[in-house]
Amino acid sequence: MEDKACILITGANGFTGMHAYEKAKLLGLKIICTGRRRNSNIPDNEFKVCDLTDFKKTLQLIEEVKPNYILHLAGFNDALQSWNAPYECLQANFGGTLHLLEAIRRFVPRSKTVVVGSALQFSPQKGEKPPHPYGLSKTLQVQLSEYWSDLFAIDVVIAKTSNLIGPGPSNGICSKIAQKIVEAERHQHTIKIDIKNGLAQCDFVDVRDAVDAYFCILTNQNELNLYEIGSGKSITLDELVACFQAVTSGHFEITVEERRKTEPVSMEIQPLQSLGWKAAYNLVNSLQDLLAYHRAS
Amino acid sequence: MEDKACILITGANGFTGMHAYEKAKLLGLKIICTGRRRNSNIPDNEFKVCDLTDFKKTLQLIEEVKPNYILHLAGFNDALQSWNAPYECLQANFGGTLHLLEAIRRFVPRSKTVVVGSALQFSPQKGEKPPHPYGLSKTLQVQLSEYWSDLFAIDVVIAKTSNLIGPGPSNGICSKIAQKIVEAERHQHTIKIDIKNGLAQCDFVDVRDAVDAYFCILTNQNELNLYEIGSGKSITLDELVACFQAVTSGHFEITVEERRKTEPVSMEIQPLQSLGWKAAYNLVNSLQDLLAYHRAS
Repeated sequence: MEDKACILITGANGFTGMHAYEKAKLLGLKIICTGRRRNSNIPDNEFKVCDLTDFKKTLQLIEEVKPNYILHLAGFNDALQSWNAPYECLQANFGGTLHLLEAIRRFVPRSKTVVVGSALQFSPQKGEKPPHPYGLSKTLQVQLSEYWSDLFAIDVVIAKTSNLIGPGPSNGICSKIAQKIVEAERHQHTIKIDIKNGLAQCDFVDVRDAVDAYFCILTNQNELNLYEIGSGKSITLDELVACFQAVTSGHFEITVEERRKTEPVSMEIQPLQSLGWKAAYNLVNSLQDLLAYHRAS
Repeated sequence: MEDKACILITGANGFTGMHAYEKAKLLGLKIICTGRRRNSNIPDNEFKVCDLTDFKKTLQLIEEVKPNYILHLAGFNDALQSWNAPYECLQANFGGTLHLLEAIRRFVPRSKTVVVGSALQFSPQKGEKPPHPYGLSKTLQVQLSEYWSDLFAIDVVIAKTSNLIGPGPSNGICSKIAQKIVEAERHQHTIKIDIKNGLAQCDFVDVRDAVDAYFCILTNQNELNLYEIGSGKSITLDELVACFQAVTSGHFEITVEERRKTEPVSMEIQPLQSLGWKAAYNLVNSLQDLLAYHRAS
């Protein structure tokens, strides 16, 4: 019988999930990962196939594993695709979280959970409206988690995370640009980049730093029920592309559809820093590692 | 082939549902009612058994019926019981509504829907917290409906309704008091009423007036996406009991646990009135009809 702390990582097959698994391994935790399909990089004894949209299977999973910590990464993460599959998006992000929260309430009410929110959630408090079904799903997921935690005195903390970058299979804008660069390098083409709004603002944070933040929240006493995770610096897509140019040697042909000023993304990272978190990667490091990942793929 | 407008009434077995069926009948609409169990008061050709928490069955229902109007009454309505069955409450009120909204988006995007909200929903906009899982479920249901309607340009209006009273099988406080009165009348006992807070405030509206309001919203062009439905008058439970005493002749023994001032319930009914709605029943009428219903049961 092992009696060390057990962490359950949901969505372990995803971009963040693979880094979270590595981190948990480093920390020497007992790990159970879940995903809808088996993962060849994770040993069988550390992986359980479970689709969280299946309520009964989710209950069985939590009753069996009885985790001390839960890092809830599973979900539908593609804002654009959410227009084509709004039900599936809501069902994955809200339904899956409801199933997990109910299983926690029934079987492990003393566990601690981090639910990963998104900078793309909107704020009903400020009268904002959802820009897409994905934004709606994340906002309702976060509200459900916050209020469920209040109603049943369960320890659930929201990690509202900005755009994740770094090595691994992401569908974010940086990953798409990196793939184009590597493709062009292979065929010695010009690197063609199309940007919709050059002045659109983003906050990019390395996925490994975000994972560190999740573990920092999980393993510390928290005064807040929501932490924002980001670099704390908002940059424009023009600046992002310039940064890509600085770390590559190919010839770029950049088309920018418009340059319309938008509000900077302001992630409040001071509360997270006060838990001891500090980013280890800057944007250049992340882009270099991202390019290296795609060059090696 | 009939080509008159078809209304789908969900939750037709409930307190409001039975009155909504009668009203739709009066209006000469083609009616399809749904409920989890068959209803002996509604002809088989006007009733389809469907549990809205079953996504596939809900899709089949809407694809088959193709309603022009939908009055969505189905749900979990017991705030106290929601503590024992929070998942079931969320699944009925949020999950069932999500299934219905997705079916509307897929098969009848030009239909018009009224989703019945509750005065017990809370306002995240005002920083309020849910008092019980039922309040959480209604608030998330209303947000989902509002934003889904925005995202997909579907005509969904919220009817935020205060406490319903009147003849029929309700589990509200008035119904409970009326049952005690009728019970005491039958056995010529003293009527024993226990009230927790005599100064707790409620707005009571007759279920038949609320049903009129739902049809008024359904059949009019609406400027708002949310209408409040109530009497517009907040009364205390002390006043409610006094009103019961005024319409009955038995001897009352009233125990009031405390008299702690609370905020009046303020339902904004002017927008509804501007659609032509007017309450036909006052509190005395409603209580008399409620007592008559229980005396005849």
